[in-house]
Formats: sequence, structure tokens, C-alpha cells
Amino acid sequence: MLDIKRVLIPDIKEFIKEKELEELKDFLKHLKPQDIADLLSLEEFSHAEKALLFRLLDKHEAAIVFSELYFEDQQKLLKYLSSNETITLLEDMDPDDRALLFDELPPEVVKQLLLKLSPEEREHTLTLLNYPPDSVGRAMTPDVLNVQEDMTVDEVIQKIRAVSEEVETIYDIYVLDKDEKLIGKVDLKSLVLSKGDVKIKEIMEKNPVYVRAQDDREKAANLIKKYDLISIPVVDSENKLLGIITVDDVLDIMEQEATEDIYKMAAVEAPEIEEEYLRLSPLERVKKRIPWLLGLLVAEVASSSVLKGFDETLSAVVSLAFFIPMLTDTGGNVGSQAVTLIVRALATGEFNEKKIGKVIIHEILTSFVLGLPLAIVGFIIAQLVSNSIHVAIIVSLSLFLVIVLSDTIGLLLPLLFRIIKIDPAVSSSPLITTVVDITGLLTYFTLATLLLKNN
Amino acid sequence: MLDIKRVLIPDIKEFIKEKELEELKDFLKHLKPQDIADLLSLEEFSHAEKALLFRLLDKHEAAIVFSELYFEDQQKLLKYLSSNETITLLEDMDPDDRALLFDELPPEVVKQLLLKLSPEEREHTLTLLNYPPDSVGRAMTPDVLNVQEDMTVDEVIQKIRAVSEEVETIYDIYVLDKDEKLIGKVDLKSLVLSKGDVKIKEIMEKNPVYVRAQDDREKAANLIKKYDLISIPVVDSENKLLGIITVDDVLDIMEQEATEDIYKMAAVEAPEIEEEYLRLSPLERVKKRIPWLLGLLVAEVASSSVLKGFDETLSAVVSLAFFIPMLTDTGGNVGSQAVTLIVRALATGEFNEKKIGKVIIHEILTSFVLGLPLAIVGFIIAQLVSNSIHVAIIVSLSLFLVIVLSDTIGLLLPLLFRIIKIDPAVSSSPLITTVVDITGLLTYFTLATLLLKNN
Repeated sequence: MLDIKRVLIPDIKEFIKEKELEELKDFLKHLKPQDIADLLSLEEFSHAEKALLFRLLDKHEAAIVFSELYFEDQQKLLKYLSSNETITLLEDMDPDDRALLFDELPPEVVKQLLLKLSPEEREHTLTLLNYPPDSVGRAMTPDVLNVQEDMTVDEVIQKIRAVSEEVETIYDIYVLDKDEKLIGKVDLKSLVLSKGDVKIKEIMEKNPVYVRAQDDREKAANLIKKYDLISIPVVDSENKLLGIITVDDVLDIMEQEATEDIYKMAAVEAPEIEEEYLRLSPLERVKKRIPWLLGLLVAEVASSSVLKGFDETLSAVVSLAFFIPMLTDTGGNVGSQAVTLIVRALATGEFNEKKIGKVIIHEILTSFVLGLPLAIVGFIIAQLVSNSIHVAIIVSLSLFLVIVLSDTIGLLLPLLFRIIKIDPAVSSSPLITTVVDITGLLTYFTLATLLLKNN
Repeated sequence: MLDIKRVLIPDIKEFIKEKELEELKDFLKHLKPQDIADLLSLEEFSHAEKALLFRLLDKHEAAIVFSELYFEDQQKLLKYLSSNETITLLEDMDPDDRALLFDELPPEVVKQLLLKLSPEEREHTLTLLNYPPDSVGRAMTPDVLNVQEDMTVDEVIQKIRAVSEEVETIYDIYVLDKDEKLIGKVDLKSLVLSKGDVKIKEIMEKNPVYVRAQDDREKAANLIKKYDLISIPVVDSENKLLGIITVDDVLDIMEQEATEDIYKMAAVEAPEIEEEYLRLSPLERVKKRIPWLLGLLVAEVASSSVLKGFDETLSAVVSLAFFIPMLTDTGGNVGSQAVTLIVRALATGEFNEKKIGKVIIHEILTSFVLGLPLAIVGFIIAQLVSNSIHVAIIVSLSLFLVIVLSDTIGLLLPLLFRIIKIDPAVSSSPLITTVVDITGLLTYFTLATLLLKNN
């Protein structure tokens, strides 16, 4: 699709050059907001041209396009807008998108902008910003379609017609009692299929699935995914309806959460919302990556010390050193696999704490079955390279032990992290590699020292 | 939510024991299909009890519950159903869910079942099964709501009422011309907001976003995500409507694709659809993990040979061996980070081929900035452990070079794979670790041999 948009560049440039702004406006009307946002992030247009294009959009569309932009493009665009234009734009944005923007802007700018917003929108925004970053509250929109249980289907359809522009979705309608407490849910499908004089309470689904504003947004995503919902209601501790999370938000949440997990598993700091690695400067990239690298490097003092401790054995049989990378890497590979499989099982909710004993036994059995053929291949390699049956036996035995140990550590580390309330995804491949190295080297050289002494 | 379900177990057991099947049936009616599916996968119930529970469901609900089950639970349940019950169930399943099931069943079973299906459903199923596993065609449902452009809003609403049970969603309605070609799309929202006598062609969106049946299902997922759609139409090369992919399918697709990428990055074979690692037996687990482990182990012949080649240097200065794990691990860590960041950028569509030059330059700059502080820390560690300034200088210089090399290899490997049409996610942490080891050891010992010779 991107290529189609690139085809439009010369046309748009021509319109601008010839000052045919009315024609350009019509032209833009044929594009979807997401495609206009793509155009506004192209380097082919100057910032002034982008501002000009943006001003041609109607108020409502402008707000959608703006929400779709990357933060850096948003910021540049804001510089070109007058104070009035900025306020109009902010008023028209969805509260959740506005909260996302305010999150990234410097606090003094946010303060000024908040003062200029209408009291209602200001309150909406402040409420959202008060919830923690990964919570349901931060991601929800308060613009919900809600009705009373005594209304008829026809009355509800009238209400939908009246407020359709102001709410995020009309496909799910929430039913509240006199105290604004959530008591039911009706979808537009049931409305359309029902007779006009039927009361809502007769067709509503009672006790719909809900989340609380303090819940992790992943919970909302998992429930929407499980029950195939279009939206899920967000309630406070008294069951009052605060807002909804919609399925299109969930698609973004799922992508962000997967990226976060994948980054953590490679020992890179999780990206901030909407942040993309390739858009970061080299210095910003280093900031995301160096904390773990440095920590793990310092941890290697341990592996160096282990090796130094076996200085004598190593001097006596230098060929033992040839197989250090083979042993540590295989341990690291097995450990990475185990960690990844368990972390993913924890993330997708596949892991069931009641079955922890079975999980551990099955995985240790797996490591035994993995270890045997690898130890045999390791024996052959070591024999060929070192030409010493003793070294080959030591390498092969160590390989087997290292595989069993690494797999077990790779299994237990994420579970331990979960128990002590650290995100299991932190038990990354690099972390497990370092842990496994030290145990692997200790095993290898202890075995070597013992076996060689007896020969 | 799972705990709530566990609370129900004693009640259900009691109903079964007392043979109060009518009461049990009523009881089940209050549960959502997804929750019933959860109950049917609990170990607390015997297979006979599960079959009994399943038979109490009404025909339509049974098909939904069955689709939500894991394959192994589906298979066990099928053994308890009569041939007639099986056919009724299959006829009632959505064509995409049925294709998923047939995919997993042994071919001879599928053949028999297909013969018993109604000709219409048989054709649907065969069509779907003919598309490749990860294609849009395999994941789509042919049950689409479609109308003609000359119909009025009232006529369309009448049609919706008539066919609502047979189609996957009534929120998106597709408009076809006389030749069944897709010409537009109307959502239920526009219908509800329009007057009854308006013609569909006046309110429809022309040229809606679409995918082709042969496209990768990730394409459908990305478009639905980008344009915030409820569904996307699937057309053939002549633009005839074949089916739709809905947003709830996309949630499943996204989770599966993320798992696939994460597995590949840890050098584990991608799971099959709906397969979960923890449900595999130890032997099945080994089958997923051993191919890569074995290949990488054999590749370590190279690192052992490199070290053997520098036998003399190593014998002369045994303390060089102390820092082998530090060097290879840091290289592996930097390489894993780079690979992960690039692979994720490729998967989320963040990577733009036109900017490849800039990407490479920025990343190499990053590796220089990463390398400096790490080399300094490496110098200090090596000096402390080996007590030799020469060794410390060699370690520190090698660290810097290894970091720059590993980052560059980690960046280029996935890009190379993409060019030669291998999934970039294959350039996993374990693979990069092995590649980086060999280059790192060569660098370290070449430097050491050169510098020590001159002293």
C-alpha cells in the first residue's frame, strides 16, 4: 500500500505549487485518515508543506489523522499551528489519544494546554493521566454509549442517532441503573434484530465481562480476545461505568506488549509507547541497550574467576580450552530455548500454576532426551579436534550435565521471577547465557580436574 | 476468571451424580461458550463426564464450544460422539474452524467425514483446505453478508434479519455488482443512521480495502489493525468476493505470529496452529528443539578449530583463556540485541527499505558508542583478574572490535535473510551467538598473537 501513496507525491506537490488548494482538499477527501497520516510522515514533504496539508483537513478528520502520527511528527506539526488551532485540534481528539500525547509532551507545555481546554475535556484528560501507564484506565475512552434498562429499542436507536458522533463505538451499548452502575450490555445486532417496542432489559446480556480501571491493560486485551468482543466496559470499585476499551485499541496493545516482551528477552529496555527503535538516534539506542550489557559484562568476572581458579588444570591440558565456547554456547542455547518457551507460556496464559510439578518433571525429562544425542556428537567433535579420549570423555559428560542444568535453570528462573513479582520476560537469553556459563564452566573444570587427577 | 470456573466443579459433579440433567442444562446456559470450553479442558472431569456435558449443549452452542477446544480435547470428545452427532456438529461449525480441525485429523478420517458432510459444506471446506496454511484463504470465512447496490437501507435491514444466524458478522455488509464483484462496503452504523429509503450505493464506501486469498494472513491482520476495521473482504483475481477475515480472527493470528517469531528467535521450531509447548510430551518437545541445537553444536567445530589453531599462543599465556567466555558472551549479547531489534522492526513493518543506508550508518555509530565504555570496563576486569597489562589491553581492544563486529553482523544477517527470502526471524540469538563466537575468537587470538609477539 505504501507504494500507492508514493505515487501521489508528485500530484500533491503539483497542487501545492499551483496553489490549487480547493482541488487538493477534494483530493485528500478520497484518502483514508491512516493514509493521510502516512503521507504526513514522508520525508519528501517539508514541514511547511505538511502543515499546509494538515490545515486542509476538516476538524474531525484532522483529529483522527493527528492521532495516527508518530509523536515526533505530532510535535513538529504543533509548532506550525496557532494556539487556537492547537486547542481546536486537542478538543476534537479522543481522550485516550490526547492522554497519550500529553504523556510525551514536556510538563510545562501540558500545563499550558490543559488550562486552555474546555473544563469537561480537561477533567477527562486529567482523570486518564492519573492512571498508571500500562493500566486499563490510561487506555480507555470515556465516550461510551449508555442507556437505561427501561428504554425501548426504538428509544435507544433514537439516542444512537443523536450521539453517534460523540461516542467511540455504537456496536456495544451499555445499560446503567439509576446510580450509573453497570447492569448489562446490548449489541447493535440484537437491537436491529428486535422489535421496536421491546424493553432493553429484556434483550440485554446481564453481568457482562468487565475490567477495572486499575487492571493491567493486558487483562482487557486477553478478555476481548477470549470472548471475541468489540469492546469491554471499565468500571470502578462501585461498579460505576468509567469508559470502554475497544478491540482496535487491543490490536495496538497486543503489538506493543509483544514488542516489549521480545525486547526484554534480548535484554533491551522495553520501548516506550509508540516508540520505534529505528527512529531513535545512536545515543538513544545506546541508552536502551547498555544497562544490561554492562551488568552482564561485570557478571563475567565470575566466569573469568572460575577459569582462573582452574589455572593449573588448564595449563596442564591446554586443549580443554578449545571446547569452552562449545560448552558455554550449547548451555546458552538450551537455556535460551527453555526461558523463551516458559516466558511465552506465561505471557499467553498457557501456564497453569496448579500443574507446576508436572511441568518441571516433563521439562527435566526433555533435557535428558536432548542431552544424550548432543553428548554423543560432542564426544565425536572433541575426539577429532583434541585427539584425546580423556578430553573427549570430559567434554561429552560435561555437555550432558550442562544441558540438563541449563534447561532446568532456564525453566526455573522465569518461574522464580514471577513468584518474586519481577516480569518473567526479564530472564532473557543474555541473562540465562551468563548464569549458565558460570555453572557450565564449574562443571566442566571440576570434572576435568577430578578425572585427570586419577589418570 | 479461571478460579470462578473451578468453584463450579463440585456443583457440576453433584448434578451429574444426582442425574439432574435438566438442571445441569439450565446451569450451563448461564455460562459463555468460552467458559464451557475451559471447563471441558479441566482434568477434574473424566472424558465420559465431558461428553455428557457436551451433549447437553444446544446444537449451535456446541459448535462454538467445540471450536474453542484444544485439538487433543476435540479428538477425545469425537471418540464419544456417534457418527450422526459428529456430522451434525461439523455441519454447524464455522467453515474456517472446521478447516482447522480437518488440518489436524488423520487424512483417512477427514476423507470419511467429508463424504458425510452436505455437498455445500463439503465444498466450502475443500476450498479452504486448498489454500496454503498461513494464507488469508485458509483463515477466512465464506459466510458473508452481501447485498446489491440498488437495494434500500430497509431492504438490507430485512435481509440482515433473515440471514443474521448464518453469517459471521452483520457489522460489515459488502456490496456486489451483478457479477458478484466487490464494489463497496457499508457498516451497520451507517445503515442505522440512514433513512430507510436511501439506496445502498449512496451510503456505501467505494473501493474498500481488501486482501486476496493467496496473501499472507499477516497482511490481513496489518490492514485490519491499521484501518481499525471489524472485517476485511477477501477477493479472487477477478475481484469476486470469496469471504472475510474478522477482527477476532486477527487477534488470534497476531498472537500466533508473535509466538512463531519468538520461538524462531530462540531457535525453536515454530509451533503448529493452536499447539502449546507445555502440552507436548518430552519427545515432542525434543523434536522441536534438537534440530537447531545439533546444527549449532556441529558449527562449534569452527570455534574449537580456531582455538586449536592458536594452541601456541594459548599455551604461552594461559590467562588468555580466562576471558574467552567474557568476549564470546558480550559479542553474543550485542548480536542478540541487534538481531532482535531488526527482526522486530521488520515484523511490525517499521523497517523501510529505502532508508537502508541510514539504518546501517546509525547502527554502526551505535556500536561504536556501545563499545567504548564496555571496553574500558573490560580492561579493568582483565587487569584485576590476570594482573597483566598486556592481557588487559588485548582483552579491551578485542571487546571493542567484537562489539562493533557483532552489532554489524546482527544487523546485516536478518536483512540478508530477507533478501534471499528466508524468514528474518530465523537469525535467532543462538545462531548469531555461534557466528559471532567464531569471528570474536579469531579477532581475540589474532590480536593476542600479534601483540604478544612484539613483546
